[in-house]
Amino acid sequence: MADKRTVTAFEGSQAIAFSREFDAPRSGVFEAHTDPGLLARWTGPAGTTLTMRAFDARTGGSWSYVIAGAGGEWSFHGSFHEVTPPSRLVQTFEFENEPGHPTFEVLTFVDLPDGRSRIDGLSVFLSIEDRDAMLGGMDSGMDENFERLDQLLEQAPVAS
Amino acid sequence: MADKRTVTAFEGSQAIAFSREFDAPRSGVFEAHTDPGLLARWTGPAGTTLTMRAFDARTGGSWSYVIAGAGGEWSFHGSFHEVTPPSRLVQTFEFENEPGHPTFEVLTFVDLPDGRSRIDGLSVFLSIEDRDAMLGGMDSGMDENFERLDQLLEQAPVAS
Repeated sequence: MADKRTVTAFEGSQAIAFSREFDAPRSGVFEAHTDPGLLARWTGPAGTTLTMRAFDARTGGSWSYVIAGAGGEWSFHGSFHEVTPPSRLVQTFEFENEPGHPTFEVLTFVDLPDGRSRIDGLSVFLSIEDRDAMLGGMDSGMDENFERLDQLLEQAPVAS
Repeated sequence: MADKRTVTAFEGSQAIAFSREFDAPRSGVFEAHTDPGLLARWTGPAGTTLTMRAFDARTGGSWSYVIAGAGGEWSFHGSFHEVTPPSRLVQTFEFENEPGHPTFEVLTFVDLPDGRSRIDGLSVFLSIEDRDAMLGGMDSGMDENFERLDQLLEQAPVAS
């Protein structure tokens, strides 16, 4: 699946751009990001459980969840700055176990031929240092999440 | 008042850092940012009127307002990613008249000796281009807003 996904860390920038293709239309991929029950099924490492504390996927809403597994508990929260189905999601994100390093994320959902789609993502960090600290673990975590999302989209097409 | 305020655009970065001192404790300056009635009295060019459409200054809340004057109407909205009185405010910001260029803003409120305080601000843009487009008009707009805030703090100390 690695060829479906690209990650670009611009030189001297505090942003990371990524792209990931899916074997489903963007409407389904978007819904998997904005329906709390669906999001919980693919977010986090395999074998963990995601519990929603809050989730209001509309412009001005916010979200908060805990991921728990054998290795511990990890909490996250953020705000939905813009929710425009099925094409655009602008949100903030913070890992509460290491507070003080929130990020700003823009996801653009693009339909491709043959019922496929692509997410073009931009993660903006408060500093280059924050960006570089994230880079190490980002690839594997993102790949695992999106592989879980592939499986979800395959099992149950969530929107046409 | 210009000596009270600094703006730094880091070379090759997509952020702007600024600092501004006030003749009031941080609790009052923070309240002027999170009380909708107070915020409306100093935000926008002199002679304009700010109308709140929504304002919920808590972590996970959001805000939306319109500034109207002889020259027209300007709409803005954003989310409160973190509200920690009286020291830290993390929020998103978008000018709706030119959508698609949201920013992410971290304000840190610091007490200084003699009842004074300082805001250390960081505005992070989605790209260097967005940052540079903002730089031209930012200084004068920020100065005018903060001079209005100086007057408000002088007229009615809003918190001790």
